Amino acid sequence: MTQPQLPATTALTEDPALQTTAENWFEYPVRVHPHHTDYAGIVWHGTYLTWMEEARVECLRSIGIDYAELVRLGCDMPVVDLSIRYHRALRMGATAMINTRILEMTGVRINWAYQIKEHTTNTLCVTAFVTLVAVDRDNGKIMRRLPPTVQDALTKFSQR
Amino acid sequence: MTQPQLPATTALTEDPALQTTAENWFEYPVRVHPHHTDYAGIVWHGTYLTWMEEARVECLRSIGIDYAELVRLGCDMPVVDLSIRYHRALRMGATAMINTRILEMTGVRINWAYQIKEHTTNTLCVTAFVTLVAVDRDNGKIMRRLPPTVQDALTKFSQR
Amino acid sequence: MTQPQLPATTALTEDPALQTTAENWFEYPVRVHPHHTDYAGIVWHGTYLTWMEEARVECLRSIGIDYAELVRLGCDMPVVDLSIRYHRALRMGATAMINTRILEMTGVRINWAYQIKEHTTNTLCVTAFVTLVAVDRDNGKIMRRLPPTVQDALTKFSQR
Amino acid sequence: MTQPQLPATTALTEDPALQTTAENWFEYPVRVHPHHTDYAGIVWHGTYLTWMEEARVECLRSIGIDYAELVRLGCDMPVVDLSIRYHRALRMGATAMINTRILEMTGVRINWAYQIKEHTTNTLCVTAFVTLVAVDRDNGKIMRRLPPTVQDALTKFSQR
Repeated sequence: MTQPQLPATTALTEDPALQTTAENWFEYPVRVHPHHTDYAGIVWHGTYLTWMEEARVECLRSIGIDYAELVRLGCDMPVVDLSIRYHRALRMGATAMINTRILEMTGVRINWAYQIKEHTTNTLCVTAFVTLVAVDRDNGKIMRRLPPTVQDALTKFSQR
Repeated sequence: MTQPQLPATTALTEDPALQTTAENWFEYPVRVHPHHTDYAGIVWHGTYLTWMEEARVECLRSIGIDYAELVRLGCDMPVVDLSIRYHRALRMGATAMINTRILEMTGVRINWAYQIKEHTTNTLCVTAFVTLVAVDRDNGKIMRRLPPTVQDALTKFSQR
Repeated sequence: MTQPQLPATTALTEDPALQTTAENWFEYPVRVHPHHTDYAGIVWHGTYLTWMEEARVECLRSIGIDYAELVRLGCDMPVVDLSIRYHRALRMGATAMINTRILEMTGVRINWAYQIKEHTTNTLCVTAFVTLVAVDRDNGKIMRRLPPTVQDALTKFSQR
Repeated sequence: MTQPQLPATTALTEDPALQTTAENWFEYPVRVHPHHTDYAGIVWHGTYLTWMEEARVECLRSIGIDYAELVRLGCDMPVVDLSIRYHRALRMGATAMINTRILEMTGVRINWAYQIKEHTTNTLCVTAFVTLVAVDRDNGKIMRRLPPTVQDALTKFSQR
């Protein structure tokens, strides 16, 4: 076991962004396969970004937004900001739940929160925040507003 | 071009951690190859973590610390915290310089700063911060102090 | 669409290894997410190896072999040979079925066949073969025989 | 050490495609970093495909072909066939030389050979073959002939 057990920090557990009931989170299950691991036998720290992206895309699908279709229609949503904190390591063979939800939307910026928990013990392994921004693929500029259907679906979802 | 051109933020440009002269940064050059890109023709946002890790390991090597050897001797240095901000996209074929330096060391925690710049134009593309912590591989616990040779090399480097 | 539509080759369609009924294949579904793609908007050619590994591990689990546990007990099964042929590209947002089965076992060598099909159209996208060999983790040498429980489970499965 | 030491096979060592003098190979050096490794402390088997791609792109650059530019001009060169054989494992911290050369060109198909050797001992770790085919990005079809400048550069290189 090479990933340390960080002392629980007050800042984290008291962060209201992370204090929501289970109902508010979209859940995306994953299993740790060999290609996710590094020399320490645990998940390589960058691997989590692939799972967070997958959970985000599937969360959007669950509220009626097909990300691939959105891109084809000319609206991209690149990550512009990301922070991630590693609390506990996940080992090969483990299953984990990627929990995500939209924290807030400010114009075309969408802030997502993440909690990744080892599935059998419900241990918190990773917390993270990601900001997306809507970009017009034709000119590469930030959009003035989200496409209406996207705006509606996201608003409904973020206010659940 | 699908990654937006974010407005320059005061917070970022005034961050003293990032206002250092070129001499203070360890420089690690990379080129964007097909496997680094995503559907948008630009570097996928998680790819930067591979380059940041490579730059960190090579920076350690430049001051006499062989990371693979350190791990074999029982000291691991996992990432426990990471934040990254994407300012400009890097396209396939571009070359970039991964600049990194140690910001501070607090016990066995080592904070690194990053600036990633497109090479030919010197445009700032990514800024990031990463925290490592030294862990005893035998018991998985955070070490009380760094191995002396590591401590010495890092102290000398961080005070350059 | 940048991946070509290769002419159907006689060699491939007549390969008896790939001519089995649906019942013989273990099926593992995947969806193409942004991090799987490259600049061409299709799955990067190396990504398929992650899916093939996942399908293999889950296939083993389905017959009672927990790969992570096997490794912990000292038996590793590295890939020693792999060939892959790309017939059609998979685009972002597509779903695909990774079909795999054990072709034959020769001592501690296990040969797997793969067919990857786009899910909605059932179009064949990729065919592949992978050879694993059982290795004793303690000394790094090829094992003389498989652990009995593994041998039994694999024999039963490969003769279905 | 979990990757086995395969017995030298006659088939391999007598393959004339791999029996060339050092002058014929383009050499691309790499170092094994943490993100390249898996739970066994060695390079994950799929990682080699990233290095093979990088070596190919840099080899093309060395003979005057800028791959990113080629793609922008409408000519893509996807991998349509790949086989790879793993002889020896590479460990974290090791350096390796990716040797590649063009074996033959048949119309718009380009066959590449690879030898990957651990650098300090010159031990052969991986041999591989990759086939590319030139595709017109506008219509997704295989091109009838290579762009003349590409054809000239490749012919000159493959006949060295």
